[in-house]
Amino acid sequence: MTGQWSESHKNMMVFNGRGNPALGEAVAQELGIGLTPTTTRDFANGEIFVRFEESVRGADCFVLQSHAQPLNKLVMEQLIMIDALKRGSAKRITAILPFYPYARQDKKHRGREPISARLIADLLTAAGADRIVSVDLHTDQVQGFFDGPVDHMHAMPILTDYIAEHYDVNDLVVVSPDAGRVKTAEKWANRLGDAPMAFVHKTRSTEEANKVVSNRVVGDVAGKNCVLLDDMIDTGGTIAGAVRVLKEAGAKRVVIACTHGVFSDPARERLNECGAEEIITTDTLPQETEGWENKTVLSIAPLLAKTIHEIFENGSVTTLFEGEA
Amino acid sequence: MTGQWSESHKNMMVFNGRGNPALGEAVAQELGIGLTPTTTRDFANGEIFVRFEESVRGADCFVLQSHAQPLNKLVMEQLIMIDALKRGSAKRITAILPFYPYARQDKKHRGREPISARLIADLLTAAGADRIVSVDLHTDQVQGFFDGPVDHMHAMPILTDYIAEHYDVNDLVVVSPDAGRVKTAEKWANRLGDAPMAFVHKTRSTEEANKVVSNRVVGDVAGKNCVLLDDMIDTGGTIAGAVRVLKEAGAKRVVIACTHGVFSDPARERLNECGAEEIITTDTLPQETEGWENKTVLSIAPLLAKTIHEIFENGSVTTLFEGEA
Amino acid sequence: MTGQWSESHKNMMVFNGRGNPALGEAVAQELGIGLTPTTTRDFANGEIFVRFEESVRGADCFVLQSHAQPLNKLVMEQLIMIDALKRGSAKRITAILPFYPYARQDKKHRGREPISARLIADLLTAAGADRIVSVDLHTDQVQGFFDGPVDHMHAMPILTDYIAEHYDVNDLVVVSPDAGRVKTAEKWANRLGDAPMAFVHKTRSTEEANKVVSNRVVGDVAGKNCVLLDDMIDTGGTIAGAVRVLKEAGAKRVVIACTHGVFSDPARERLNECGAEEIITTDTLPQETEGWENKTVLSIAPLLAKTIHEIFENGSVTTLFEGEA
Amino acid sequence: MTGQWSESHKNMMVFNGRGNPALGEAVAQELGIGLTPTTTRDFANGEIFVRFEESVRGADCFVLQSHAQPLNKLVMEQLIMIDALKRGSAKRITAILPFYPYARQDKKHRGREPISARLIADLLTAAGADRIVSVDLHTDQVQGFFDGPVDHMHAMPILTDYIAEHYDVNDLVVVSPDAGRVKTAEKWANRLGDAPMAFVHKTRSTEEANKVVSNRVVGDVAGKNCVLLDDMIDTGGTIAGAVRVLKEAGAKRVVIACTHGVFSDPARERLNECGAEEIITTDTLPQETEGWENKTVLSIAPLLAKTIHEIFENGSVTTLFEGEA
Amino acid sequence: MTGQWSESHKNMMVFNGRGNPALGEAVAQELGIGLTPTTTRDFANGEIFVRFEESVRGADCFVLQSHAQPLNKLVMEQLIMIDALKRGSAKRITAILPFYPYARQDKKHRGREPISARLIADLLTAAGADRIVSVDLHTDQVQGFFDGPVDHMHAMPILTDYIAEHYDVNDLVVVSPDAGRVKTAEKWANRLGDAPMAFVHKTRSTEEANKVVSNRVVGDVAGKNCVLLDDMIDTGGTIAGAVRVLKEAGAKRVVIACTHGVFSDPARERLNECGAEEIITTDTLPQETEGWENKTVLSIAPLLAKTIHEIFENGSVTTLFEGEA
Amino acid sequence: MTGQWSESHKNMMVFNGRGNPALGEAVAQELGIGLTPTTTRDFANGEIFVRFEESVRGADCFVLQSHAQPLNKLVMEQLIMIDALKRGSAKRITAILPFYPYARQDKKHRGREPISARLIADLLTAAGADRIVSVDLHTDQVQGFFDGPVDHMHAMPILTDYIAEHYDVNDLVVVSPDAGRVKTAEKWANRLGDAPMAFVHKTRSTEEANKVVSNRVVGDVAGKNCVLLDDMIDTGGTIAGAVRVLKEAGAKRVVIACTHGVFSDPARERLNECGAEEIITTDTLPQETEGWENKTVLSIAPLLAKTIHEIFENGSVTTLFEGEA
Repeated sequence: MTGQWSESHKNMMVFNGRGNPALGEAVAQELGIGLTPTTTRDFANGEIFVRFEESVRGADCFVLQSHAQPLNKLVMEQLIMIDALKRGSAKRITAILPFYPYARQDKKHRGREPISARLIADLLTAAGADRIVSVDLHTDQVQGFFDGPVDHMHAMPILTDYIAEHYDVNDLVVVSPDAGRVKTAEKWANRLGDAPMAFVHKTRSTEEANKVVSNRVVGDVAGKNCVLLDDMIDTGGTIAGAVRVLKEAGAKRVVIACTHGVFSDPARERLNECGAEEIITTDTLPQETEGWENKTVLSIAPLLAKTIHEIFENGSVTTLFEGEA
Repeated sequence: MTGQWSESHKNMMVFNGRGNPALGEAVAQELGIGLTPTTTRDFANGEIFVRFEESVRGADCFVLQSHAQPLNKLVMEQLIMIDALKRGSAKRITAILPFYPYARQDKKHRGREPISARLIADLLTAAGADRIVSVDLHTDQVQGFFDGPVDHMHAMPILTDYIAEHYDVNDLVVVSPDAGRVKTAEKWANRLGDAPMAFVHKTRSTEEANKVVSNRVVGDVAGKNCVLLDDMIDTGGTIAGAVRVLKEAGAKRVVIACTHGVFSDPARERLNECGAEEIITTDTLPQETEGWENKTVLSIAPLLAKTIHEIFENGSVTTLFEGEA
Repeated sequence: MTGQWSESHKNMMVFNGRGNPALGEAVAQELGIGLTPTTTRDFANGEIFVRFEESVRGADCFVLQSHAQPLNKLVMEQLIMIDALKRGSAKRITAILPFYPYARQDKKHRGREPISARLIADLLTAAGADRIVSVDLHTDQVQGFFDGPVDHMHAMPILTDYIAEHYDVNDLVVVSPDAGRVKTAEKWANRLGDAPMAFVHKTRSTEEANKVVSNRVVGDVAGKNCVLLDDMIDTGGTIAGAVRVLKEAGAKRVVIACTHGVFSDPARERLNECGAEEIITTDTLPQETEGWENKTVLSIAPLLAKTIHEIFENGSVTTLFEGEA
Repeated sequence: MTGQWSESHKNMMVFNGRGNPALGEAVAQELGIGLTPTTTRDFANGEIFVRFEESVRGADCFVLQSHAQPLNKLVMEQLIMIDALKRGSAKRITAILPFYPYARQDKKHRGREPISARLIADLLTAAGADRIVSVDLHTDQVQGFFDGPVDHMHAMPILTDYIAEHYDVNDLVVVSPDAGRVKTAEKWANRLGDAPMAFVHKTRSTEEANKVVSNRVVGDVAGKNCVLLDDMIDTGGTIAGAVRVLKEAGAKRVVIACTHGVFSDPARERLNECGAEEIITTDTLPQETEGWENKTVLSIAPLLAKTIHEIFENGSVTTLFEGEA
Repeated sequence: MTGQWSESHKNMMVFNGRGNPALGEAVAQELGIGLTPTTTRDFANGEIFVRFEESVRGADCFVLQSHAQPLNKLVMEQLIMIDALKRGSAKRITAILPFYPYARQDKKHRGREPISARLIADLLTAAGADRIVSVDLHTDQVQGFFDGPVDHMHAMPILTDYIAEHYDVNDLVVVSPDAGRVKTAEKWANRLGDAPMAFVHKTRSTEEANKVVSNRVVGDVAGKNCVLLDDMIDTGGTIAGAVRVLKEAGAKRVVIACTHGVFSDPARERLNECGAEEIITTDTLPQETEGWENKTVLSIAPLLAKTIHEIFENGSVTTLFEGEA
Repeated sequence: MTGQWSESHKNMMVFNGRGNPALGEAVAQELGIGLTPTTTRDFANGEIFVRFEESVRGADCFVLQSHAQPLNKLVMEQLIMIDALKRGSAKRITAILPFYPYARQDKKHRGREPISARLIADLLTAAGADRIVSVDLHTDQVQGFFDGPVDHMHAMPILTDYIAEHYDVNDLVVVSPDAGRVKTAEKWANRLGDAPMAFVHKTRSTEEANKVVSNRVVGDVAGKNCVLLDDMIDTGGTIAGAVRVLKEAGAKRVVIACTHGVFSDPARERLNECGAEEIITTDTLPQETEGWENKTVLSIAPLLAKTIHEIFENGSVTTLFEGEA
């Protein structure tokens, strides 16, 4: 036989975009490896330049980006990093998007609108991503927007464990801030000792962003401790309004929990003033606690590190999120 | 200049699978055209053979299939029809799936599962479909599974108009049979005079199909007329259970409404016996009324015909479903 | 250097559709492994649900399906299994179709027909199959319908070895039941000691399925033992007719051999009564012998197992079928 | 409404490669148009340069190439012409290949071989061809190698009409020169008054090209006029050998007919000397008659022109070849 | 015949991103139509939302975006607009990028870099663009990055006509600011009466952006009026340096001309102070003249409008830029 | 766990087209392996047949082709080899094109032209190539025509090392034969001790190939030794003209250096007679020295062998060409 034989090895490399440097560092530390040194700079007109300082040939590459502001720039940065890996002969490229950008635009509400969440999946494919890892997608169906493996991880157990440890489970009602999250609330309720449920019945205007028309509580919350949850909190209008409605309906205390703390202005002000007992979130997006009263940040770095490890070693990630299924 | 010039014309052709012959005929009649004659036969071993009896070259083709039983065979039949159109030089191929098959499998509930609703979109693309028309998708996100235009039509106005005409709107509560449909129920409530809402809090087992663990009503239904809605009713277990729970919670009358009346065994028996006042559905799937007490079938043929007409004439279909957005 | 190194291993997993459980079990036994446990169930409306009970991440997956009746459902089941493997991060997916469905529809006989055999290849690609294994394709050109490796295995050596062992080779004529199989008959003749050949000259109607217009034998069969062969026998009309024509032309004995025993009704009756000495086939499709006179079933499980083994170990499968080339 | 409306027109343009200038001219003349002026030249190192002298924007373009020698260069030339049309904004590009190159390599005879006929289809797609027109493909299945419309035209009626006019049909036997063409011979036999059939049983070596091992006639030809047919004749070894075998078997006269007269050396010498009465072919490839005894060339230009016209006008081409189906 | 016939019309719609509102308005005015009304807004976290206020079904759509700052956001905005058009059933989508973003990253200078200019083409394809129009690409080869028609328009005639009108052509030297633009300078020289040429020999550091190592003039500029040209001027460092070097080499006057006036900080300061007579540019990017001494802005709106018109009417755009070829 | 585990190995195989047998042999020898035995033959009508004599299943395959004359045939041969590897289950296919064919057609000079260099990349992709290796592309941007990794190697260090060794560096001027190569000349100048530069200002006619309109030297060459370089020399007209112009401008000696010595007729005659001191080239194309005065051929086999080795072992090739970046 002609040719030449050799043993196969595989190596894992982790790359970090500029969206949340601390998260990437924490993940690498959990994995016990260093992030691959990367030169990323902006040209004067805003174009991004990327160069990796080590060969990526044949590597199993994980590209982490946290989609904070400026969001579109960070999307482009991750795409450019992926393109550079593809052209640099990476063996496999996994895009990690702890907070999936444009996830709320997952359907056409009316005619002539984009489905930007699908577009994001298509752009990742066009750039060269083979697989995606994300956390608590706005809707589970976003998994189906990508034509390849999507590992959909859940921060819920991290959040519910914290709540179960710090609050009396027997006294809880799980509350969805609107009709669209009731299904998710049901999962939380199951996990929190089959707690009773409620939701706020609210109508957003399709003409103007975030304009709430009316609110009423469906379900019984009088005298109860309410866990008000959402996958993400942006400007905090909906959630702060829900706290108020719950208080009016006789709720004893209200705790807010969300995976993705976007907290665009004026979220901090609204949430500080809405009367909530505590606001619990994770670091899928960069978080600061200064200026916040009672904000708690739980880290998803261990979850991401375990996921990367299992993917690299061809283990199962199912066990990592089975609890809530 | 060399070459030869000619005026452009366009022609529309409508093709009907064997899933619901009556619906295709009704649509063609609404459009004032004939269905294109098609030879469809089964070989002895179950393979389907299709041949169109007229040239389809350059035509704007609409391929209607109603995904009743045997569902997988009808999926394959539509794919084969599309392949034959593609190879026969059709100009544009629109697949019409009033009831989108496998729509419930729109995400991975747990690891190592398919996302069959996305697979259906991929198969349609592979066969040669340029566009899709569907009615009341199980989740709106399924639109994003197809890489091209999806006209997502709504039967809700047909159903709510009927209810508003036959029942006293002032006395209604709109009820979702489970947490996952509360968002849809909210749209119905808006359309039915901003009616109050409720839902049944229920847990399905992920291990065994349709095993309901427990039920309780969230919201106030005592002494009210309840409109219990769903996008589809299959074996009717959930919905019949919900009727019972509503009655126990003091509901006066319960009316059931759904777009897709799948009604697999033993749905008819269950719904006849569950105590519902009326069961309202449409003909997205073939319907019979024999053996049913109080079943009403509304036709979507006019809606589909108008949609086809607007697509062919490059009009807007948005106006056809704007009411509910 | 940053990152982390690890040794590469590979693992093989075999999955079995519901088309022929016995064949999958036999293949696994030959390989000395277990089939990967799989939950496959039908929803009430006919939709198929699949879930694998073990992680498939990084595995070299072989998905075996036998395309018996209901054929279209079994096609969809294999596509869904492949989709689940793709989304579950399988490393490589090989679809095994011992009997390639729709293989007879490998061209347009007239205008506006599908080429369903190509469609099947496209659907497998769309679902995520990387490679195909099949046995005795109706025409060799079907290999070219798939854009990737196709391992085309041959059952002919199994069948001819059996014939050579049980019949006197010196007295044989190899007969093709129609003009389209003469090339294949030539290969058999070469393998059976350069036996003489004949064929039945027959015309099928394009208007009505399987309507034979006329038959005459081309070649000399008087006083000879005839081996009448085909790649597949469906309703048996052609082959039974050929037996009769051969007998009329003075044939001493007629033995029928085919790889794919589809045997749709009324094949059993026809073949029992046609006067053939023996009917030899394989288990590419599930076979029963009850109610049959003189039917012999040879197993292709060893051939498939060897093929899987060679693919997994990157050996050559060419040696497995070189005999007939 | 914003925007601007205008009437749609369409125009047809025909382009001719350098493989057979006369054929393109004849087709254009039949259509009553001029060929679009094209600059085609070779750079010194063999690279081809193409430029069209008129705008092709929005045109329905037909690119004719006759795949004579040097075959690979003419393949590349057609691909480059298609690329230039695609980039020049042609609306639709139809590649016309009267003689489909590499059609004999339509399957893997043994392992590690290409399927070059499929490759040709893929290259045409990659360059930008939307559709294909070809004549008498070596095997019908090649239609399925292209993922789009293939109009497969037939020269058989032209050839059989000529034979019926010049020879006594009642005295004919249709003979296939080998087992692989028996099916085609059957079609000819049907068209020539249900004539009887025969074939030459021959084995080619897979090791050395065209090495014939042995020949014998299957069927009765003594005292008959034989029409020996093939889709293509290359070096003429097989066909000349068949003439000799037929003569030895007592044939009265032998007429040779083929669609594609490749006639590579030493075909002319062989066919002149083999004893055939007449050699009938078409101009799918450029033909000269000098140095030939009894060679007749029939033109396919009218057939191609009609096909182009029907495609442009969205008529049906099925009627053009229905006779033989 | 079944089906329904209708005349074909076509309509053109022009859409404008937020990068340069004035340019879009000017183009529409030249065309004599209105821009299609579009709702574009930013969500609080930076996600862009787009909705068209008129039906785009069947329209020939032109999507203009000027890639000023914030560049990445404007890239995403155009992609989202294209996605919305695709899903809204636009017939054809032409992306117009007067200044092609990331055009300078058209190759890998060293290993593990992206080719972002190709990535941009891939993203446009993924979103749904069928064709591209751009002006004065940094390198002509960028045309080949897109798999479809690219109409590459040239502002050079606009700039050279202006120079020929305002300066004495007989006294000119055309100067390239570095080796990479000499080819372009040659085209200018040809157009400006076959003027003599020169260039500045300079080395940029690959380690640090824009770090000029050394400069010397190649060619004779003493006592001449120099036209210093470039396709784009970003921070102005190279060009201002070139002015200085030319002055040192004895140039009389220096005029700067470029198509794309990016003018990132501190370009204005540098160019005001470098000693150039006049700075001539176009409005491919939004331009202000306040704070500038001697800056002249020529509009490309007429060029774009003519291009759109020719594309829509299937005319030739070649005549629009033939002058320089 | 079901399934079967095994260690992963990898093997490298090198295949050689018929364009330059000696180069392939030299590369294999450098690697210390044998070329995989391959049967390549031409059918009588020019069709190419390829078969590999060893199993390629799972192998890392490198397909080397040198694109000499007949160029188009050698392009097709490499495509067919790649198709055979793809269908034979090669794990990864790297196409090596030391001289990238059609590289000069990397843009549309005028309307309705192809971009054949992009077409070549698309054809390689269609055939199944995963990656490309090439040497000294005519323009660097060709890297971006391929949607995958391109290892772009440089022969410049080989050529400049030779020059530095054989000529006095302190006395050199680096000269580009036309404006398009000035950028490349700059790189050479940097490498040759920051030598001064010049170029010949010349206009080619777009109407007729290679017609030079006028020449003048830009820069100072009097009394200097000139290194006249180009990436490729075809018929030698440009370069011989440049030698003459340099001599007229007072150059002492002129040495010609190019990577790709195409040397189509009448290059040898022209270069022998033009007065150049030495002509230095490499064996990216087959070279003969007979009939040449002062032609030196340097081998790139060691460069290609090192590149293949690094790709196979997942090392970095960046270090191999970093010198010139």
